[in-house]
Amino acid sequence: MKINENYLQLKENYLFIDIAKKVNTFTSANPDAKLIRMGIGDVTLPIVPTVVDAMKKAADEMSVKETFRGYEDSGAGYDFLREAVSDYYKKLGADVSTSEIRINDGAKSDCGNITDIFSSDNTVLVTDPVYPVYVDSNIMSGRKIICADSNESNGFAAMPDRSVHADIIYLCSPNNPTGSAYTKAQLEEWVEYAVENDAIIIYDSAYEAFITDPEIPRSIYCIDGAKKCAIEMCSLSKTAGFTGMRCGYTVVPEELIVKTSDGHEVSIAKLWGRRQGSKFNGVSYPVQRAAEAVFTEEGQKQIRENIAYYQENARIIAETLTRCGVPFTGGKNSPYIWLKCPDNMGSWEFFDKLLNEIAVVGTPGAGFGKNGEGWFRLTAFNSKENTIEAMARLEKLFNE
Amino acid sequence: MKINENYLQLKENYLFIDIAKKVNTFTSANPDAKLIRMGIGDVTLPIVPTVVDAMKKAADEMSVKETFRGYEDSGAGYDFLREAVSDYYKKLGADVSTSEIRINDGAKSDCGNITDIFSSDNTVLVTDPVYPVYVDSNIMSGRKIICADSNESNGFAAMPDRSVHADIIYLCSPNNPTGSAYTKAQLEEWVEYAVENDAIIIYDSAYEAFITDPEIPRSIYCIDGAKKCAIEMCSLSKTAGFTGMRCGYTVVPEELIVKTSDGHEVSIAKLWGRRQGSKFNGVSYPVQRAAEAVFTEEGQKQIRENIAYYQENARIIAETLTRCGVPFTGGKNSPYIWLKCPDNMGSWEFFDKLLNEIAVVGTPGAGFGKNGEGWFRLTAFNSKENTIEAMARLEKLFNE
Repeated sequence: MKINENYLQLKENYLFIDIAKKVNTFTSANPDAKLIRMGIGDVTLPIVPTVVDAMKKAADEMSVKETFRGYEDSGAGYDFLREAVSDYYKKLGADVSTSEIRINDGAKSDCGNITDIFSSDNTVLVTDPVYPVYVDSNIMSGRKIICADSNESNGFAAMPDRSVHADIIYLCSPNNPTGSAYTKAQLEEWVEYAVENDAIIIYDSAYEAFITDPEIPRSIYCIDGAKKCAIEMCSLSKTAGFTGMRCGYTVVPEELIVKTSDGHEVSIAKLWGRRQGSKFNGVSYPVQRAAEAVFTEEGQKQIRENIAYYQENARIIAETLTRCGVPFTGGKNSPYIWLKCPDNMGSWEFFDKLLNEIAVVGTPGAGFGKNGEGWFRLTAFNSKENTIEAMARLEKLFNE
Repeated sequence: MKINENYLQLKENYLFIDIAKKVNTFTSANPDAKLIRMGIGDVTLPIVPTVVDAMKKAADEMSVKETFRGYEDSGAGYDFLREAVSDYYKKLGADVSTSEIRINDGAKSDCGNITDIFSSDNTVLVTDPVYPVYVDSNIMSGRKIICADSNESNGFAAMPDRSVHADIIYLCSPNNPTGSAYTKAQLEEWVEYAVENDAIIIYDSAYEAFITDPEIPRSIYCIDGAKKCAIEMCSLSKTAGFTGMRCGYTVVPEELIVKTSDGHEVSIAKLWGRRQGSKFNGVSYPVQRAAEAVFTEEGQKQIRENIAYYQENARIIAETLTRCGVPFTGGKNSPYIWLKCPDNMGSWEFFDKLLNEIAVVGTPGAGFGKNGEGWFRLTAFNSKENTIEAMARLEKLFNE
């Protein structure tokens, strides 16, 4: 038995392991220090009541023969949820039909699995700094990976280089880790580039619910022509705190057609449906009912309160950095704040300084790619009290 | 963008579509006929009370900040569930440690996804008749597929041909669709063959809970040496009616080590963990709590009642066929009954006869591979009342 030796090309990612080690060393030496974790990538507020009620009601249905549900016929998600997602897209200004939506157990699965339907012989473009899953899932298939640089000069929002060819393009907006969000004009340029290259954009909109600026599209399908070249993946993880509930959705437009080597046209949605039909059996029924509740009027009201709580934290961080004269991206339209380490410090040097001098933990930008060196990520997912305290400590440090 | 053209080699499977068409035609022409569906592949009894209660309790935990759970750190499953599965294996006579277990959203996902970590340049062996997922997920990766014949002469339990080499071997016992279950001696022979060939067995034990004969192993790990060559996948779908809840588990033993092309040893568990780490984010917390409840004393008592109900149906079918002198496999140790069509009828010919003459629907064996022609699958998942009535009609038909 021969293994897939592409796996041997994967680099171990020690980012969060190294952070944990340093934090452990610090807390052992300073048992009384009040550590504040501003590197949290997970939500911290609980699931809202209307969503929990929906899950419990669905669990009860499962206990009665007449309302029990077994296999979902298509595995693409129940109509009630696909219709709710389609209606939600309407409110975002995008026209997505239920038949173009497949419900999944979180964006990470589909983001990795979608590569199954593409040839290994494609060039993949990622923006750097990058969410490591985009890179690793393509290394596993042996694809060539190239980078578009996100850096201070472009506001950490990399744009296409028309002299470079790519076949598959990963975009994440609002971005993890940089918090930058593409404008309509910028996304139009990416769509043009994709069309010129016969490329497919994999658009990760996991943080769309944090967008407040009406000029920033919340879906790639707000852009003309995107349905001919883009697959969009979203998740309820950050929208409704579903990181432990596990539900999201992927849109593969019907207009997304590619040609085979002998010139036949193939529907990407059909290929993806075939893939999922053989390797996936749908999302848990009570989880789908919980997800449906997110899109109700009451559900939206409740989840918006949680998002507003995180947004307020992000605002507090952004204001502090502005006052301190520290360059940053994000904070607005995103739960992430990506800041420039002061005094030309390296990411890890600044990490050590924050940990050892003010007991605040963040994430070194260098862990997300070469363009992350010298930058640092803070997140809005701690409590308001802790966020205020951490920023007070930070401001004092910067003013020393 | 180039697609993975292996997908163009997939055959469309029209089995259940063709059945539905024929049934529709019949019911239109015979609106008053009482149709009995004996082809049901899904469970029909509801989730047991203790499991539903556990899910609702977990949903409530998610609604409180102090007990809310976000991302699961490893994505391999919570310790509470992995320990429950490990304890369950002990009762089956197999030694499987928690670190060897990964919780999944059903066996189908892992069964398809596991092929990611293997080279395309491997020969895959399936037994025919076959569950189509084994075949399709390997066609998608362009692997060569060979068959071992299950037929009347070997009780529809194919054994290895030592003159043929395979790298990856799919075994399903008790088998879908034939209901046959391998004995200890038979599994020993498969393990020997795998070791001789440096092959890996993918062992699908989804129906293990239906085994009543103490001589039939309920896990491949009841066989000496299996931990050096076998991955086992199981699911709570048939054990506890989880087809709509979605939870299962995959065991990759620590002893399962293979060599790379340059002679280095690689742990399959580590490769699989790497794959899942990039492309999977764990199973919903309330679903994992529901699954945990399946393994409690009360949970086991309740699910055994449901399994006993299906087993009684299987017994009724098997007794009827025995009285009628119809050869069959399964029925004992399995919810499936695989019978020989009378008078040398083809599978579809017999399907039409049952549908049109006694309004009973089953599944033509020809839909599962070449060795299925002339055979027919019935299942134990209808109600006892319907099963008794269907068998009374069948017996009358055979006696005419």
